[in-house]
Amino acid sequence: MDSQYDIVAIGDAIVDVIATCDDAFLAEHDLPKGSMQLLDTDAADRLYAAMGTAQETSGGSAANSMAGIAAMGGRAAFIGQVADDQLGTIFRHDMTALGVDYDTPPLANGSKPTGRCLILVTPDAHRTMNTCPGASHELTPDALDSDKIANSAILFLEGYLWGPEKPRAAMLKAIETAHAANREIAFTLSESVCMPGRRETFSQMIRDRGIDLLFANELELMQLTGDQSLGQAIASVADKVPCLVVTRGEHGAIAFADGEGVEVPAAPVERVVDTTGAGDLFAAGFLAARARRHDLARCLHTGATAAAEIISHFGARPEADLKALVRL
Amino acid sequence: MDSQYDIVAIGDAIVDVIATCDDAFLAEHDLPKGSMQLLDTDAADRLYAAMGTAQETSGGSAANSMAGIAAMGGRAAFIGQVADDQLGTIFRHDMTALGVDYDTPPLANGSKPTGRCLILVTPDAHRTMNTCPGASHELTPDALDSDKIANSAILFLEGYLWGPEKPRAAMLKAIETAHAANREIAFTLSESVCMPGRRETFSQMIRDRGIDLLFANELELMQLTGDQSLGQAIASVADKVPCLVVTRGEHGAIAFADGEGVEVPAAPVERVVDTTGAGDLFAAGFLAARARRHDLARCLHTGATAAAEIISHFGARPEADLKALVRL
Repeated sequence: MDSQYDIVAIGDAIVDVIATCDDAFLAEHDLPKGSMQLLDTDAADRLYAAMGTAQETSGGSAANSMAGIAAMGGRAAFIGQVADDQLGTIFRHDMTALGVDYDTPPLANGSKPTGRCLILVTPDAHRTMNTCPGASHELTPDALDSDKIANSAILFLEGYLWGPEKPRAAMLKAIETAHAANREIAFTLSESVCMPGRRETFSQMIRDRGIDLLFANELELMQLTGDQSLGQAIASVADKVPCLVVTRGEHGAIAFADGEGVEVPAAPVERVVDTTGAGDLFAAGFLAARARRHDLARCLHTGATAAAEIISHFGARPEADLKALVRL
Repeated sequence: MDSQYDIVAIGDAIVDVIATCDDAFLAEHDLPKGSMQLLDTDAADRLYAAMGTAQETSGGSAANSMAGIAAMGGRAAFIGQVADDQLGTIFRHDMTALGVDYDTPPLANGSKPTGRCLILVTPDAHRTMNTCPGASHELTPDALDSDKIANSAILFLEGYLWGPEKPRAAMLKAIETAHAANREIAFTLSESVCMPGRRETFSQMIRDRGIDLLFANELELMQLTGDQSLGQAIASVADKVPCLVVTRGEHGAIAFADGEGVEVPAAPVERVVDTTGAGDLFAAGFLAARARRHDLARCLHTGATAAAEIISHFGARPEADLKALVRL
């Protein structure tokens, strides 16, 4: 079936505030390296006051993926909630400037500011994320553009939005719309999906065949299933989703579909500067290739190439000419 | 006389919005490469809508200089006007995080947003600046902290604020305060000072011995005096200011004081990425060394070292350990 878009994503609409710090700073503020915390406004303000001078760039996991897909020449759309404020304007500008179709209206009641993510990058290139979601978690089913979802080959959902009630309801509605239009539904897991009280609803959805394509890293997959080994975790999930993609950082990635497993190594990188966005761009590459009906190996390779570009510089939005790099 | 600060600066308090573009984009939007335009809100919104995805970092010419001085270990303070909005919060955070003393209260009446500068960087590393000054040009004499000015060894004034009436009045009051406290007054020229109707008031101030130390690039100096050659322009000004510093881009810099001229070459740079902030960081290095009573040659060298660091990466705030680089 023809489609207007290759991929439409629903995700956090937030601006990243990126600064460097040392390990002592993380320890002092009780931030486990490589983790993601949700912060309320007061906690975010305190952390911001303590952290160093920063750069702001538009972020959000699935939004980064859509930016990557547009940079590869794919037709990407995004649905996410910003407020009517300066950070919201920045987020909207950057999505649009990259060629991503984005027209979710800003939050009308002014109750929450546009979300931000305070990202601390240590000298070993690891990123520790501290998200103050703001308006982003106020996304409701009403804000969805159902035509856009029905007219996209793939619906891509971000795990960070599975926790809060309103955006989870929006995602469930989007899944119905996409199913009715015979579209493929992809979901990227996040640690937050795997927390008690959320894991059950998500596992149920997988059992109900709600998801066609699941992205997860090793830790997230093991947290989801409660298994102690990656092999067990894969076995628990692989027969419930038509396609399972597991990212393994420097060890590359594996995909399972139709009883077959395909593995790729990580693409070589001269110097890893900042791992922010690695998973997002991996998903972008995989999805961009899949929308063009490439095979699993090509999808994995494209994901690995896009991830390698993003970790070679500061920030989670592509800088190099991804279109030329991946040549889809 | 002892002082609490090495340097206090008065300047634009703005956030830079930096994007890359090609030469065709500049031509299409009638933007002379390397120039600075003042834009009203509508024109700024139109240009922003047309330009690519951007990074936001705190900016402002004299503010960049103070950030540089703090990074070199100097005691820097800054006075400049932001609004009570998200960009204003970002500006304040970044100054404070760098160790610059900054406590100008935000604009009370909410009439103008915090200023921003849309910076377009072409592949040849030149930057074309499009400033929407907003609250920044609403600085009034009332907003000055006179104690801070009286307690700083050097008062540093930014030419961009000489044009609009309110901040010019603030600068004139600051000059009086500094003179009364026997402090040195430095001024960095900008093209905008050299425009008809502004040049006269500025030239008069120089003749009245209002400025002890003048920074200018070649073009600005020739525009100020109306001379056709750099030699003539220098001759016209050098006897009116105790110290004249002329920056010449890749040709280095010259300083004139007490009838003596000292010249330094530009410091070597592996690859020039973005010239944004070169003049600001040159002034920072020069002033940081001067506040420690180093001689002209050392001041020039320190300026050249700081400028070389800033043009080797994207953005106008230092990334390398400037303190270790300049060792004052």
